Amino acid sequence: MSKEKVILAYSGGLDTTVIIPWLKENYDYDVVAVCIDVGQGDDWGKIKQRALDTGASSCYVVDAREEYITDFIWPALKANAIYEDRYLLGTSTARPLIAKILVDYARQEGATAICHGATGKGNDQIRFELTIKAFAPDLKIIAPWRIWDIQSREEEIEYLEKRNIPVPMKKDQSYSRDENIWHLSHEGLELEETENEPNWKHMLQLTVVPEEAPEAGEYVEVGFEHGIPVSVNGKKMGALELMKELNKIGGRNGVGLVDIVENRVVGMKSRGVYETPGGAILYFAHEQMDHLCLDRDTYFFKQQASLKMSELIYNGRWYTRLMESLMAFMDTAEQNVTGTVKMKLYKGSIRGAGSSSPYSLYNANIASFTTGDLYDHHDAEGFITLFGLPLKVRAMMEQATGQGQAVEAKALKQRPTE
Amino acid sequence: MSKEKVILAYSGGLDTTVIIPWLKENYDYDVVAVCIDVGQGDDWGKIKQRALDTGASSCYVVDAREEYITDFIWPALKANAIYEDRYLLGTSTARPLIAKILVDYARQEGATAICHGATGKGNDQIRFELTIKAFAPDLKIIAPWRIWDIQSREEEIEYLEKRNIPVPMKKDQSYSRDENIWHLSHEGLELEETENEPNWKHMLQLTVVPEEAPEAGEYVEVGFEHGIPVSVNGKKMGALELMKELNKIGGRNGVGLVDIVENRVVGMKSRGVYETPGGAILYFAHEQMDHLCLDRDTYFFKQQASLKMSELIYNGRWYTRLMESLMAFMDTAEQNVTGTVKMKLYKGSIRGAGSSSPYSLYNANIASFTTGDLYDHHDAEGFITLFGLPLKVRAMMEQATGQGQAVEAKALKQRPTE
Amino acid sequence: MSKEKVILAYSGGLDTTVIIPWLKENYDYDVVAVCIDVGQGDDWGKIKQRALDTGASSCYVVDAREEYITDFIWPALKANAIYEDRYLLGTSTARPLIAKILVDYARQEGATAICHGATGKGNDQIRFELTIKAFAPDLKIIAPWRIWDIQSREEEIEYLEKRNIPVPMKKDQSYSRDENIWHLSHEGLELEETENEPNWKHMLQLTVVPEEAPEAGEYVEVGFEHGIPVSVNGKKMGALELMKELNKIGGRNGVGLVDIVENRVVGMKSRGVYETPGGAILYFAHEQMDHLCLDRDTYFFKQQASLKMSELIYNGRWYTRLMESLMAFMDTAEQNVTGTVKMKLYKGSIRGAGSSSPYSLYNANIASFTTGDLYDHHDAEGFITLFGLPLKVRAMMEQATGQGQAVEAKALKQRPTE
Amino acid sequence: MSKEKVILAYSGGLDTTVIIPWLKENYDYDVVAVCIDVGQGDDWGKIKQRALDTGASSCYVVDAREEYITDFIWPALKANAIYEDRYLLGTSTARPLIAKILVDYARQEGATAICHGATGKGNDQIRFELTIKAFAPDLKIIAPWRIWDIQSREEEIEYLEKRNIPVPMKKDQSYSRDENIWHLSHEGLELEETENEPNWKHMLQLTVVPEEAPEAGEYVEVGFEHGIPVSVNGKKMGALELMKELNKIGGRNGVGLVDIVENRVVGMKSRGVYETPGGAILYFAHEQMDHLCLDRDTYFFKQQASLKMSELIYNGRWYTRLMESLMAFMDTAEQNVTGTVKMKLYKGSIRGAGSSSPYSLYNANIASFTTGDLYDHHDAEGFITLFGLPLKVRAMMEQATGQGQAVEAKALKQRPTE
Repeated sequence: MSKEKVILAYSGGLDTTVIIPWLKENYDYDVVAVCIDVGQGDDWGKIKQRALDTGASSCYVVDAREEYITDFIWPALKANAIYEDRYLLGTSTARPLIAKILVDYARQEGATAICHGATGKGNDQIRFELTIKAFAPDLKIIAPWRIWDIQSREEEIEYLEKRNIPVPMKKDQSYSRDENIWHLSHEGLELEETENEPNWKHMLQLTVVPEEAPEAGEYVEVGFEHGIPVSVNGKKMGALELMKELNKIGGRNGVGLVDIVENRVVGMKSRGVYETPGGAILYFAHEQMDHLCLDRDTYFFKQQASLKMSELIYNGRWYTRLMESLMAFMDTAEQNVTGTVKMKLYKGSIRGAGSSSPYSLYNANIASFTTGDLYDHHDAEGFITLFGLPLKVRAMMEQATGQGQAVEAKALKQRPTE
Repeated sequence: MSKEKVILAYSGGLDTTVIIPWLKENYDYDVVAVCIDVGQGDDWGKIKQRALDTGASSCYVVDAREEYITDFIWPALKANAIYEDRYLLGTSTARPLIAKILVDYARQEGATAICHGATGKGNDQIRFELTIKAFAPDLKIIAPWRIWDIQSREEEIEYLEKRNIPVPMKKDQSYSRDENIWHLSHEGLELEETENEPNWKHMLQLTVVPEEAPEAGEYVEVGFEHGIPVSVNGKKMGALELMKELNKIGGRNGVGLVDIVENRVVGMKSRGVYETPGGAILYFAHEQMDHLCLDRDTYFFKQQASLKMSELIYNGRWYTRLMESLMAFMDTAEQNVTGTVKMKLYKGSIRGAGSSSPYSLYNANIASFTTGDLYDHHDAEGFITLFGLPLKVRAMMEQATGQGQAVEAKALKQRPTE
Repeated sequence: MSKEKVILAYSGGLDTTVIIPWLKENYDYDVVAVCIDVGQGDDWGKIKQRALDTGASSCYVVDAREEYITDFIWPALKANAIYEDRYLLGTSTARPLIAKILVDYARQEGATAICHGATGKGNDQIRFELTIKAFAPDLKIIAPWRIWDIQSREEEIEYLEKRNIPVPMKKDQSYSRDENIWHLSHEGLELEETENEPNWKHMLQLTVVPEEAPEAGEYVEVGFEHGIPVSVNGKKMGALELMKELNKIGGRNGVGLVDIVENRVVGMKSRGVYETPGGAILYFAHEQMDHLCLDRDTYFFKQQASLKMSELIYNGRWYTRLMESLMAFMDTAEQNVTGTVKMKLYKGSIRGAGSSSPYSLYNANIASFTTGDLYDHHDAEGFITLFGLPLKVRAMMEQATGQGQAVEAKALKQRPTE
Repeated sequence: MSKEKVILAYSGGLDTTVIIPWLKENYDYDVVAVCIDVGQGDDWGKIKQRALDTGASSCYVVDAREEYITDFIWPALKANAIYEDRYLLGTSTARPLIAKILVDYARQEGATAICHGATGKGNDQIRFELTIKAFAPDLKIIAPWRIWDIQSREEEIEYLEKRNIPVPMKKDQSYSRDENIWHLSHEGLELEETENEPNWKHMLQLTVVPEEAPEAGEYVEVGFEHGIPVSVNGKKMGALELMKELNKIGGRNGVGLVDIVENRVVGMKSRGVYETPGGAILYFAHEQMDHLCLDRDTYFFKQQASLKMSELIYNGRWYTRLMESLMAFMDTAEQNVTGTVKMKLYKGSIRGAGSSSPYSLYNANIASFTTGDLYDHHDAEGFITLFGLPLKVRAMMEQATGQGQAVEAKALKQRPTE
């Protein structure tokens, strides 16, 4: 009789390489390794081989980059979703897709469990597991970091060496990192003390330090349709090509660096540095588009809805009714957000350099100083009378009762008379 | 018998200089000119003389800079109040104070009317008049731009020349500008077409163009107490000195430039460029402080309250019950926001360079990878079970009814098997 | 050459009957009267004849009741939209449809203007005109009450009598009223002093005074699909039949009375009494459905979105991008809100009497006291550790700094020791 | 050497009576029982004796009713805090006070642990423990229901009988109940199936079934100062007397019954019935006061803040920075909420019967039909032009681009022409 199967989210790194033998020893599963490429830039051929060499019964590689961008990044971008005013949600958006793909494989393979390598202190365990619960409440979830006795990288290496399994070496393991097509995050080392400046030179990988960006700077133009980017510098591009192009442009000009002490879902604060070179350009550009194409009411409420969406995404609640409903809201709100934004990137900064849209609600004729026929200076009189009526009514009440700001001495201040 | 008095908000510029004779000719008032210094950087001695020469019966000059910073800028900063994700509310915060001082003078002088030079298409008429209504519903408000036939600067000049009144010459009148200790705004010229890049070199006055900022960049450190800035680079400073110092530092490093198409209260969009060199540093620093010192719930709701406060400030509703209530909220929320933020300014960009607070809620021990006694990896298991319960319940219901994402074919996607 | 045409929203009442000759005398228009039946319960044949007799060149009658319910009431109900915690938006929802139909006729007839009989102090002028602007910015809008010198009903009657036009007599004109298939509103008379009790007996028309409702009370059951009511007491009904049935049932049991001092858009407060017998049942029932079928996150944010939607509807901003976007949100949120709610109506009160849904998220097994397999009492331990971590971290910081609620004497109170 | 002490929240019921021997057997603590009277209506003398008889080393009784009302109920009432549109937060408001008093005793007695009898599936464990963490992060928390093997009332009784401890008999243990001066909640029995009607007659204890309330009904008048109730029917009363009086009045008229399926913090739905006779009167009255005394902006944002406050209270996050900040908001917002509300209670329903305030913002002169000097019908014209400008600008853009509601055929509908 065949063994039960477990789907393992396999990255080829130290953690998940340890997990393969650990799973087999502790559960007697067939381990099906799944490598999900969301833009980590890894050599998946080698990684697949490593999985098989380490004991996986099979290993699949999925290129999910396009799906990741279109189904996860674009909705977040469309909403201007930013976590705690800084973080562009790079890791948060990738986790639900990865978990969803694990479920897909669990169903295809008839597996009974899913295993991931996220630790017990982080957000990712939540994002993985909430998605699994949303699609497959019947599947067992195994999170070794919450179970085993291993406490450090050193113990992991020892674990592999004892079993004569080659230890996978990552390029640079000094920081704890997560990379995909949208961003690269860094935690640990000097960042653990909030008073330290990040060691930018040591840390950055997608982006040059602004000080080393070219003196000339660079103009870049992004085109949008219905709130979604579709072209760079006048050239239509697919989602993946577009992200690669903007990452290159943003990266060489040092834009998109974020250093934040953020609140994790699990109740603690942690500090991270994020590189989001292309993403920073897109968020800047998209907000400019919204400024042109959204009316005031929509803009204001969208800000509120965006805060909620950011929270949901960060909290791993992507596959929820509320998230669906907010996306429906955004799709309608952004229907006319079509046009072009030009920016100047310069040594870490982005400045607007003009924007336009066929659906622009900016109307030079109305806004200009001279009176046009759409709008009469005198109309403002009536507007102010009604718009200010509540303030006047309150003041009259205060004058009648002898209490309040309109009558109190402390409110009316003596002013110089010379 | 003496004439009735009108209080005129006098800036010494062309508009308000025309208003003096116009008021006397059309209303037979004694015109009391009031010059309110919120940091325009003008020569108030000359301006006072001009008011008297032009026909004002008296002219008072008030230095309101300290009051402006402490009572208006600090509350907005404490709240991180930003209008439409960009604008730091420089003009919006100054208007209620100016109008309040006009009312103070109206009471001191026994005037029966207040006159201002704001046009009928802008936000400032609303900000002035709502404040006047809030304190003095009995006073008449005169807004010449909504009354007279003058339509342009040229007609204003002609008006003065006909009366042999010297025409006041501003340094540079190419853009329509508003300046105070917090910011300088620009409207008009090339900005009227949204597709144009701002002519930065021509326009900027407080700030160098980033390209011309020094290659070395500059570190700056700001100290906060209860959400309010109190020191720069370790030196305690009063509000006015602090703003001047940060404007200098920010200005020479090219930070704080904003180019935005914004929604005016009066229902139209307009485009402006803002220079807020010191303000940009303070907002950046203050947000870093909030990241350290506010818990997650407070941070989230404060974001919502901040959006509402920004709207109120922009709309001229400073002296309202809701504004008071929001300030009370912010004062309590920010009680522990005390500490220091270091930043690197570099050619238009600001990067964090470390922050600290005695009340920091960041706890390196909790956040670090290794298990401490405050937090057990295993606790996460129970947390996720409950936190994810609604998703699981939904999925089980879907499996039972055979409908929804947990069972639908479209949701479960075929994945590669090689 | 033929005259230009004006479309007049004609109700057959005194106001709009005066407007016909007034329009002809002052503008030389052909007056096209349009009678829009949203459930006023009038004799439209007679009214049409009156329009023609009074000088209208033509008169159309539209039965818009079904459209009103499905396209306006249902979306508001689905959202639980309530204005200022009381008002079920009966007049507010009807106005945009009426104005939209006026525009439809203006286009069909090639008219150049639209005229309505709303006064200059109310909300309805805004609701009419914003809708007209949203569809036909080119049309002239004529609001006689803001133009003519007539100041009272008496002057209107005199105006007609002078022209030998018969004065239309309404059944009862003691209160100022607005009726449609959803509600009946009352303003004026004793309601003008807030300290007065409404004269219920005199006033009510759709509803009996609770004191006169039958002692037996009455059970009623409403079925919903996707947030929309579809049946009463087990019988499937079209929208119009359903509303009529529930109005009868609610009316005879005295439910749905509201007495509120509300904030008008135009900046003042006014007082009204509303009868919404069927509506009150539907809102009660729909909230019960939401309690069963919505998860917590969705319920919470829906409450916020509902407040905004209520404001938009009240303000006449139905045909706006934000309203569309909120409706898209609600449609998705309510996808599973299908089921049945039973209620007991009794002399003015409504009590729940059981509810059920195939998509209910209530799960008796999980909620019950005894431990089931979905949920382990021990899981709560870990949940609380993480959920409460921010409180603990704060307290530890307070103990370390010696400041704050965890250490202050005032916080820790001496308690009795006997 | 003396034993360590544990503070036990003792109610005298079965659960906490079992806990005393269990604690002693399993931890070797001195058990200090604390009885906190928040209005349960129990015989505390007897209960104290029972604690001592069962093995407690000491037992204290605290009358916390006044403190509960003033410090917990009044702030919730001032905010109109309602959970999920129905529940008046009766249990939620009492838990933080109870836990706070436990901490006070832990400090007074030098105890090292606190023990409570809440189960592992409910909200109360969270409310108790979060408060303990907020004040005393160093104290151990013991929640027997999450630890021991006892699974039911039967096993508890058996546990006591084995030890020859008398089994405390509650008046009626058919439902699971929680009572205090504000409310009485019921769970279990027929309520566990949502389709069942509550067995009102069997269940209700504070309130008569509406059908049995007196036919005459009853008028009641409540006076408020700064948002807080201070008098009933013209008689000034202390908080406790006032609550008792209103509970009596409300109870005999059958008002304040709620039947709700609510979302617990722990991720599941549960169903409860609440009796809040006095509370329902106070909430109704307080909202009427707000309608009179709050301006529109304040009312709207207060609704949002109220939703958040309800969530915090329900979630046990009373002693948090955000809660403090929201209370500061409410205190300022409610400064002028002073006046009187008259209501008619009638067989389960409450109707307004007039309200008044010296700070009322309702102004009969402004609201009335006839034009006054504060407000000119013509002003509305200008108001609408500006207020509607965004809709007009959009429509013009649509006409120019040939897309959108202002031009699309589907938007413009063919209407009847007879």
